[in-house]
Amino acid sequence: MTAGRRIYWRFASSAHRVLLAVIFSSIVLSPVIADVSPPRFQLMPAPASLRLGDGRLLITQTFSVGISGYKEARLERAARRFIQNLSRRTGLPISFHLSEPMKSTLVIHAEHASQPVQELDEDESYTLEVTSSSANLAAPNPLGVLRGLQTFLQLVQVTPEGFAAPAVRIEDKPRFPWRGLMIDVSRHFMPIDVLKRNLDGMEAVKMDVFHWHLSDNQGFRIESKKFPKLHELGSDGLYYTQEEVRELIAYARDRGIRVVPEFDMPGHTTAWFEGYPELASAPGPYEIERRWGVFEPEMDPTREETYRFLDKFTGEMAELFPDAYFHIGGDEVKGKQWDTNPKIQEFMRAHGFKTHRELQEYFNAHIEKILSKHHKHMAGWDEILSPGLPKDIVIQSWRGQKSLAEAAKQGYRGLLSFGYYLDLMHPAFEHYSVDPLGDEAGLLAPEEQRLILGGEACMWTEYVSPENIDSRIWPRTAVVAERLWSPQDVQDVDAMYERVEAVSGELDELGLTHRTSEMRMLRRMAGTDDIAPLVVLANVVEPLKEYVREEEAKKAGIELSRDDALNRLVDAVPPESETARRFARRVNNFLAGDSRGGAAEAEIREQLTAWRDNDAPLEPLLQRSHLLQELEPLSQKLAALGNAGLQALDYYDKGERAPAEWTALELSFIEEAKKPQSDLLLMIVPSVQRLVESVTAANNTP
Amino acid sequence: MTAGRRIYWRFASSAHRVLLAVIFSSIVLSPVIADVSPPRFQLMPAPASLRLGDGRLLITQTFSVGISGYKEARLERAARRFIQNLSRRTGLPISFHLSEPMKSTLVIHAEHASQPVQELDEDESYTLEVTSSSANLAAPNPLGVLRGLQTFLQLVQVTPEGFAAPAVRIEDKPRFPWRGLMIDVSRHFMPIDVLKRNLDGMEAVKMDVFHWHLSDNQGFRIESKKFPKLHELGSDGLYYTQEEVRELIAYARDRGIRVVPEFDMPGHTTAWFEGYPELASAPGPYEIERRWGVFEPEMDPTREETYRFLDKFTGEMAELFPDAYFHIGGDEVKGKQWDTNPKIQEFMRAHGFKTHRELQEYFNAHIEKILSKHHKHMAGWDEILSPGLPKDIVIQSWRGQKSLAEAAKQGYRGLLSFGYYLDLMHPAFEHYSVDPLGDEAGLLAPEEQRLILGGEACMWTEYVSPENIDSRIWPRTAVVAERLWSPQDVQDVDAMYERVEAVSGELDELGLTHRTSEMRMLRRMAGTDDIAPLVVLANVVEPLKEYVREEEAKKAGIELSRDDALNRLVDAVPPESETARRFARRVNNFLAGDSRGGAAEAEIREQLTAWRDNDAPLEPLLQRSHLLQELEPLSQKLAALGNAGLQALDYYDKGERAPAEWTALELSFIEEAKKPQSDLLLMIVPSVQRLVESVTAANNTP
Repeated sequence: MTAGRRIYWRFASSAHRVLLAVIFSSIVLSPVIADVSPPRFQLMPAPASLRLGDGRLLITQTFSVGISGYKEARLERAARRFIQNLSRRTGLPISFHLSEPMKSTLVIHAEHASQPVQELDEDESYTLEVTSSSANLAAPNPLGVLRGLQTFLQLVQVTPEGFAAPAVRIEDKPRFPWRGLMIDVSRHFMPIDVLKRNLDGMEAVKMDVFHWHLSDNQGFRIESKKFPKLHELGSDGLYYTQEEVRELIAYARDRGIRVVPEFDMPGHTTAWFEGYPELASAPGPYEIERRWGVFEPEMDPTREETYRFLDKFTGEMAELFPDAYFHIGGDEVKGKQWDTNPKIQEFMRAHGFKTHRELQEYFNAHIEKILSKHHKHMAGWDEILSPGLPKDIVIQSWRGQKSLAEAAKQGYRGLLSFGYYLDLMHPAFEHYSVDPLGDEAGLLAPEEQRLILGGEACMWTEYVSPENIDSRIWPRTAVVAERLWSPQDVQDVDAMYERVEAVSGELDELGLTHRTSEMRMLRRMAGTDDIAPLVVLANVVEPLKEYVREEEAKKAGIELSRDDALNRLVDAVPPESETARRFARRVNNFLAGDSRGGAAEAEIREQLTAWRDNDAPLEPLLQRSHLLQELEPLSQKLAALGNAGLQALDYYDKGERAPAEWTALELSFIEEAKKPQSDLLLMIVPSVQRLVESVTAANNTP
Repeated sequence: MTAGRRIYWRFASSAHRVLLAVIFSSIVLSPVIADVSPPRFQLMPAPASLRLGDGRLLITQTFSVGISGYKEARLERAARRFIQNLSRRTGLPISFHLSEPMKSTLVIHAEHASQPVQELDEDESYTLEVTSSSANLAAPNPLGVLRGLQTFLQLVQVTPEGFAAPAVRIEDKPRFPWRGLMIDVSRHFMPIDVLKRNLDGMEAVKMDVFHWHLSDNQGFRIESKKFPKLHELGSDGLYYTQEEVRELIAYARDRGIRVVPEFDMPGHTTAWFEGYPELASAPGPYEIERRWGVFEPEMDPTREETYRFLDKFTGEMAELFPDAYFHIGGDEVKGKQWDTNPKIQEFMRAHGFKTHRELQEYFNAHIEKILSKHHKHMAGWDEILSPGLPKDIVIQSWRGQKSLAEAAKQGYRGLLSFGYYLDLMHPAFEHYSVDPLGDEAGLLAPEEQRLILGGEACMWTEYVSPENIDSRIWPRTAVVAERLWSPQDVQDVDAMYERVEAVSGELDELGLTHRTSEMRMLRRMAGTDDIAPLVVLANVVEPLKEYVREEEAKKAGIELSRDDALNRLVDAVPPESETARRFARRVNNFLAGDSRGGAAEAEIREQLTAWRDNDAPLEPLLQRSHLLQELEPLSQKLAALGNAGLQALDYYDKGERAPAEWTALELSFIEEAKKPQSDLLLMIVPSVQRLVESVTAANNTP
């Protein structure tokens, strides 16, 4: 690092938040970035510390990589992948060969090997120094190198002189050691290539655990050689061979990602029972479940045969999955089958068990011993926690930080997934605001806080197919990754959204389909490429949140299942409307600034006019397709909202109160427009409401 | 086929051209298709005959396929792939299993096996009958089934009732037996996955020959076990292993595609000589050529060792490639090395050879014997033709139909590639107008015409990378495919463009990147997602045609080579501007209709205004990036063209002649704007010129 602007931008220090804002902020609302200022950093997750140097390192065709220090094949593959990605980011034909460190543009230096099987507490820190002539990436072990290479890629930007990385010194390490993504491949099977591209995405944002939810009521997705009827009868033929599993684990290891398998038990097990009904608590026969929900079939925890089976089965899987952790699920055990099985009832009486919970604790204790014998630490959802279990287990909480805090107080380690459920379709800023050490966990003593290992974003797949999974996971998972990697006080939401956009482009380059699949699906719905008015509508809606899609179906007397096609607008649009978010910002700024008739108002009017006038061209398109017909009311509501907003602006401009009848009418329509329609929400409603309310009696007096 | 509208639409019959136009035409200029008429057929290539029935076959989740008649694993794989594609086209979760023919939605019936190695003259015909309750696909052998499955997929459209295929009876077969695509993997290496997705594209448009240009001055791209220095020293490490080659051949066979390898000789052979300089006519040493052009290194045709080497080498390759044809290139032999090698000169004198051509004929005759020994028919470019060769050879003509006609008159078979060179960046309609039996070939006697086997689209890759190759090949290659498959009188250009759009969407669904890569490249150039004004400019430019890019570089004293990055606007935009094409149609219709002040004029004005006003927002974007700075003059010219067009319309509306000075000034600017700039052409210039000329003295007199 040469001399120069030695401003020390420590991301984690609140004293430097202003500087941080300078680097990471300034969302641009207009479609054109009009400034030619030096590029902003678009790192995500933000590093622990960054110091800006002088100048920039130009990236040219002759860019080369050398490895000094510890060497291994994985590092060389990482360097090769890095060069491929650098080529892709720049379009430069950079060829890969390891060059002498002294002559290399980028020198990679790891001090020693990482563990043969990646461990939870391994050091992932690195130091990246870029000068105008070269770059150095140093780390204790290859994991830090993998992380630093991703940082370097994110530094590369186009400039008037060429592609370049700014001169910086970055010292970086993660805040939490467990930064995971869970994918449910049971409800909808995801082919290996879908998983691979998602591992690529995880690597880009420095996540380190792939949690593979491999079995559930709706499917058993892995080949078992010991119990072949598990996959033969439990999967509709959609399962991973053991060879594919090994390949995926190797693929993940190359990217510094651990693979933790989950076999949910004793509930969520219908798919096991088609092949092995004797494991269940009721006689069967069983069929793979195709519907969604929580179902009755549960393993029989009272029979020794169940444990002999699970011992053999987990033994087989423990050998296949090298990771030290093994997830047994353990959630949502309702005990209905237990209640109706006289033998189980007798067993409970004999053991003095009064609740299902006690019986599940008995089960968990057995399973824990089995796993321990196979050298695995047990992981499970909140429900597995019980005081008798050893302290090496890990509790994954879908319930919240309170649950984690309680576990930590008893000495148990935990992971947060509450607040990180991707299927609930929440916007990025909500996930961003959730901290594993927030709420009750924030009140823990430091040594208890250390038991909170991190968290996992969870992708449950009721309404998720290989076609739309990427848009459900990305880019929102990047903000979870930042929350788990970056210092706690990296919190600026506007800056986050700007960096999310950059990382989203990077993920698109890597082959993730979160950006491209929507347009493809819209064209399919319409049966034509000329879908401009459909895009206008699609841009302002979001899928229903939480579990409202189920509730709406229930109201309508429809039973949802895997047989439903996921080809409607609700399945195509991303969870978060960028257009609505930007519009809300515009309206808020406009109302705060109170600048009647200015450019901001003109922009808002233009947008409202486009919405008002969109129904006429959209209508004929909707008529052509069974998939679009349901959108007619939405399209009409959008037009009415555009109209209402424009009328409100007219009153606003005149400094007039709107007539009471008009206000009442519009506000009642707005309430109507907030309701779910075709499993979608019109996301501009609150902004239009603000405009309308701004001209009610109390507000728009001149 | 039930009774009903038994209109016989024979595509090839000129008597039915009007009906044909009804089915296949009506280009829609406005962004919205406003009619809700029954769907038009979007078949490409158009079938030989199609008869419309009553109703439509709805496609649902329960769609099933059964195979009656001849069975083989390839047919089952084809059926599985068909179901996957049908799922993708509809978004319906259709699961694959072969069902009983009696209970299947679609029954496939092949009478007998096809040849173990696909042959040139195999029957590819099929009959596809769709009724409102089921579909039957019958063919003499599996090749016809493969073709018919693609037709079925193209029949599926979205309707108000659901996805459906109209009731039809299609009897179809190709016009020519050799419908190929050549890809040059020497100048730029294309990874196997790039080739595979292009084979998928070929299957979709019923092409049947992949011509693999495997060696050239710039690289030797295949593993040779007998002469390993060929790939080790001749490829920069970028070559296909023999295992990959076998895999690709199997992949192609599954799609009814033959694989014909080309090893260009005795010229275009620099890459061979790095490992084996003794093959050359001058001592060397040699290095892989990185520049473009025609180079001196040539094999020494006078030494017996050359033939011993080639015998062993072609023997190895003949075993690897099962196809009966083996392409030896043979083009552009300059003989410079032969002239300067005294031994070769002496040899020529001794044999009485006066020209290089005679020496090359001597070489070809030897090679032909060697290939014949290895059971291969020789294929080569125009230059290999000489009367002494046996009649089983095939001449591929880059020179034109005249050359083919001459060969045919001598009894030689031929293929047309003249007019199908994709790298020359011609618009689709030009390729469409080229017929293997056009011009001189059209004058041949019927039995001579039968010697014209078809043609090949050729993708030479000087400026083509894995990133932009799909947009160079597709969708234009689909129109070559149609020319080679469909009856000769399928010629309606507007209808062709409409169907090209549909097929382009289908190719996008299959994973081809011709649609998605442009935006990705534009975003990379700009370093931001907010590229709206850049897209406006990109939409009206095309890459330079023919070899003008080279000529421009030469003028500027620049030597182009493989080291150049292909990341500029010229590399990103498609060969044909859809916007400019549509604008030209609008302007022509407007001027022909002479409807002052109507909707057509308003649309033209809107477009011109957008161009006139685009420079201001684009300018700051251009300043930010070294890749965009060169576009400043183009952007200014676009603005000026928009302005000129608007002024012309003002005169037009007033029924005034434009002042002579104005006209002179604008027309001279227009001439200037026609010149290449940044290797691009502004494609709206001719339309603006028409507008300006419409108000010159002679035209706009009231």
